[in-house]
Amino acid sequence: MTNRFSSSLLEKAVTEINRLPGIGSRTALRLALHLLRQDEGRVEALADSLVQMRQGVHYCQTCHNICDAERCEICSNPTRDSHLVCVVEDVQDVMAIENTMQYRGLYHVLGGVISPMDGIGPGDLQIESLVERVRRGGVEEVILALSPTMEGDTTNFYIFRKLEETGVKVTVIARGIAQNDELQYTDEVTLGRALAGRVPFVS
Amino acid sequence: MTNRFSSSLLEKAVTEINRLPGIGSRTALRLALHLLRQDEGRVEALADSLVQMRQGVHYCQTCHNICDAERCEICSNPTRDSHLVCVVEDVQDVMAIENTMQYRGLYHVLGGVISPMDGIGPGDLQIESLVERVRRGGVEEVILALSPTMEGDTTNFYIFRKLEETGVKVTVIARGIAQNDELQYTDEVTLGRALAGRVPFVS
Repeated sequence: MTNRFSSSLLEKAVTEINRLPGIGSRTALRLALHLLRQDEGRVEALADSLVQMRQGVHYCQTCHNICDAERCEICSNPTRDSHLVCVVEDVQDVMAIENTMQYRGLYHVLGGVISPMDGIGPGDLQIESLVERVRRGGVEEVILALSPTMEGDTTNFYIFRKLEETGVKVTVIARGIAQNDELQYTDEVTLGRALAGRVPFVS
Repeated sequence: MTNRFSSSLLEKAVTEINRLPGIGSRTALRLALHLLRQDEGRVEALADSLVQMRQGVHYCQTCHNICDAERCEICSNPTRDSHLVCVVEDVQDVMAIENTMQYRGLYHVLGGVISPMDGIGPGDLQIESLVERVRRGGVEEVILALSPTMEGDTTNFYIFRKLEETGVKVTVIARGIAQNDELQYTDEVTLGRALAGRVPFVS
């Protein structure tokens, strides 16, 4: 649909909103018209929050998680287990693991996974800083918690080889059939891995 | 999912984005993290476009369409047929009709339809200004182009009664089976109306 905008200001706003990933031109128009119906203060609050976030956000110097200071709350929390470092792809993964309330160690946010197709090599990720961190000592176990994709597996392998010389224990999160999934609809790779990775039954 | 944000600035931005209609908390987080990866200038351009649109947009004094001046480009275009006024619910409908390239008259944007359930009465819409506009003379036909819903029909009827005393010709856009729709799957009301509203065949 090629819209003929009756207002250049509206058109500009729609164009900008349309640049956001997953927001098509129809949704962009709908959002712009919604904002037009809101109080000026509300629109300013939205705009300010975006600019302030972009300008003010820090990345933790240790784990590269998003935070408001030089060091994130997790890294600076003395009750967390600093011997454990969980390697994740991005900030959303930290949130997902924190939501499980099952992990009390620290993190290391790579900022992506190795993906030659997207032009992302090891140098674009926080892998060197992970190796440095382990070398400095204090870390006993590195848990690889990347997505079980080809890119994730490649990155796991790359990190494993890089960490080999440090002698640190490297583990990877369990792969198996997901809670509430139906066995008969589970793909062969997952089912094969779940069988191979079977553990003693605990009642 | 109750996310534990590691940054209050990120949390604030996600909260604001989340207020937009149809944007859930997961999408809001995804959009915020996307913006974090963009240049500061890009984020500012988005924020500015929203505030400038909200502050700068005008509504046409004649037809209430969105525009950049006191009068919209359609109303001030001398080649448009000012004897025809097409009544629509909102700005998107003007765009939709303009996109057909089939209409050369003017518009009147109501700003909604009568909907007692949502607390929208005739007084909340630009109906009085439409009657005034017709009374001032020059308008020969008012085309009702509201959505074929109960609210649209109610509003059509209300406007029709209000315009009766002016003697202006009031028409309503054709209802029938949509292009490329399959007859057997068309609902009875639509099919019944399409039969009742049949027109001579033109080859």
